[in-house]
Amino acid sequence: MNPLIKHKPLFEVELKKVDEKILSLGKNRPELIKTMLHHIVSAGGKRLRPIILILSAKMLGGKGRLIIDMAACVELLHTATLFHDDVVDESKMRRGKKTANELWGNAASVLVGDFLLAQAFAIMSNCGSLELIDILSRTSSIITEGEIKQLMHKADITTSVDDYVSIITSKTAELFAGCARVGAVIAGADEKQKLAMEKFGRNLGVAFQISDDALDYFADEKSWGKKLGDDFREGKATLPAIYTYSAVKDLSVQNKLQKLFSGDEKDRNDKELKNLMGIMGDVSANEYCMGFARDYSGKGAKELFKMPGNKYKEVLEDILDFSIEREG
Amino acid sequence: MNPLIKHKPLFEVELKKVDEKILSLGKNRPELIKTMLHHIVSAGGKRLRPIILILSAKMLGGKGRLIIDMAACVELLHTATLFHDDVVDESKMRRGKKTANELWGNAASVLVGDFLLAQAFAIMSNCGSLELIDILSRTSSIITEGEIKQLMHKADITTSVDDYVSIITSKTAELFAGCARVGAVIAGADEKQKLAMEKFGRNLGVAFQISDDALDYFADEKSWGKKLGDDFREGKATLPAIYTYSAVKDLSVQNKLQKLFSGDEKDRNDKELKNLMGIMGDVSANEYCMGFARDYSGKGAKELFKMPGNKYKEVLEDILDFSIEREG
Repeated sequence: MNPLIKHKPLFEVELKKVDEKILSLGKNRPELIKTMLHHIVSAGGKRLRPIILILSAKMLGGKGRLIIDMAACVELLHTATLFHDDVVDESKMRRGKKTANELWGNAASVLVGDFLLAQAFAIMSNCGSLELIDILSRTSSIITEGEIKQLMHKADITTSVDDYVSIITSKTAELFAGCARVGAVIAGADEKQKLAMEKFGRNLGVAFQISDDALDYFADEKSWGKKLGDDFREGKATLPAIYTYSAVKDLSVQNKLQKLFSGDEKDRNDKELKNLMGIMGDVSANEYCMGFARDYSGKGAKELFKMPGNKYKEVLEDILDFSIEREG
Repeated sequence: MNPLIKHKPLFEVELKKVDEKILSLGKNRPELIKTMLHHIVSAGGKRLRPIILILSAKMLGGKGRLIIDMAACVELLHTATLFHDDVVDESKMRRGKKTANELWGNAASVLVGDFLLAQAFAIMSNCGSLELIDILSRTSSIITEGEIKQLMHKADITTSVDDYVSIITSKTAELFAGCARVGAVIAGADEKQKLAMEKFGRNLGVAFQISDDALDYFADEKSWGKKLGDDFREGKATLPAIYTYSAVKDLSVQNKLQKLFSGDEKDRNDKELKNLMGIMGDVSANEYCMGFARDYSGKGAKELFKMPGNKYKEVLEDILDFSIEREG
């Protein structure tokens, strides 16, 4: 069962306060900001990043207002990235709902994304801890660099697996690493624990993104809640495609796949998707990806193993398992 | 004469180091980032914000590396805003050169803008001063809020003069205020001086933006270096238009102007611009705007008057004058 639902009572109170904090940013501010903040809070994201931060802090004995503020801060950083991603990708839908740029236009998405970023930094600044500011400002730099690397490799299925891992580490896993480390810092953990938590977060993040990229092709369509093959249709070169490209030895198939991803959107139709899925089946792309994700999840578990045993730790373990076993 | 050229020797060394600092951010980073950083450094912006920061610090006896780092930081914040503005406005040209989004596309402008923002915050974080982080993170919040307010009022020439001033204060003047205050903080000034410098910067910023908005209609086209009436063509309701709308008492003219600004771009042609300029002449819009700008410049001078007399102060005084007397 989804641990984010099963164990909700362990972080529910904090999560509600995070939502309140996010909504409070609209106070005395233009209507557009209020509307978009409501959109964020009600859009039903998983809230995985604040949850990891909250659980990491509580596992190590942390408490108090700082947990809420920093959890809101990482959710704002994440949401700002989503707003800007949707402009970059020209996405119309996310999680089955219209995206902000589809609803309010690119201009609002860019500027409200900037507003969310600025608010995240204002919260950091208010927290008064140079250590926390340092972690999240570095995280934020790495994310933007990852996004740019991703843009440059977007349609290129000849990207190496190493480059793919480096991109998803920057754009996704670093924020998970930051969340777990911030939790440890708030709890007053020692450097060894902070580093272990950071590594736990980074490995969880990589596992999570790989399984996300695999689910886009191989999920059970009902639980996934969106159409399979979206990454293919958008010409995004993710691990299933990158691996398949390298695993098929036939040069003519490789050439065709390469052109298909980098070529015209209208050529990436259902027939071509079905054909690609057939090739992916032949080279066991799903098994490869999930094995790869499991490796990272295992590395994360090794770091978590060093932490004191309690119910919060158990949920983090469940989240690690969930990252590679989920169906949506 | 332009004081930024006349007095260049007083800040030239620092400005060169600011450029080096900005270029150094491309080290070990993707080619696209390097290219865009070169574009920024060579695009020939006025560098007004870092210059104000440098002069404010030096006027009050500040010295050292922190001046360079914070000057680079404010230029990055400003440039990030320009990159995102160009996406928001769909601008093709800036300062007579192709904009980044025209050259590299919206995606690159959004993401490299984010990269610049993140780098600005990373520099702040590295400086290790909570006071400086606090000033610039608050400034950054206010700028984004101003941009959003501007977006909501963009084509509305019924906007009140108070709302217009509030918008330009947020989106432009706050960064000038931040620059001057940061300079004072670096120099170890007392709270009274810091506050005076902040007010000096804010008033300078408002004067500068008003005269910028007036020059867009009334500049000498050769010195201005771009086509007159760009704001009209883009349907941007700035002070000359807002004032003219309120000053013409004829309801039918008001209605026509309102529809012209909020209506279809192709209706805002040269004939309509000429007509609008005629009405602006009738109500002395240029004189009104420049009088308004002079008020702010005068308020800025009053704050600057409290500072110790030296050659750096004289340049800041010249910049105040220049903000309302420049032709480009």
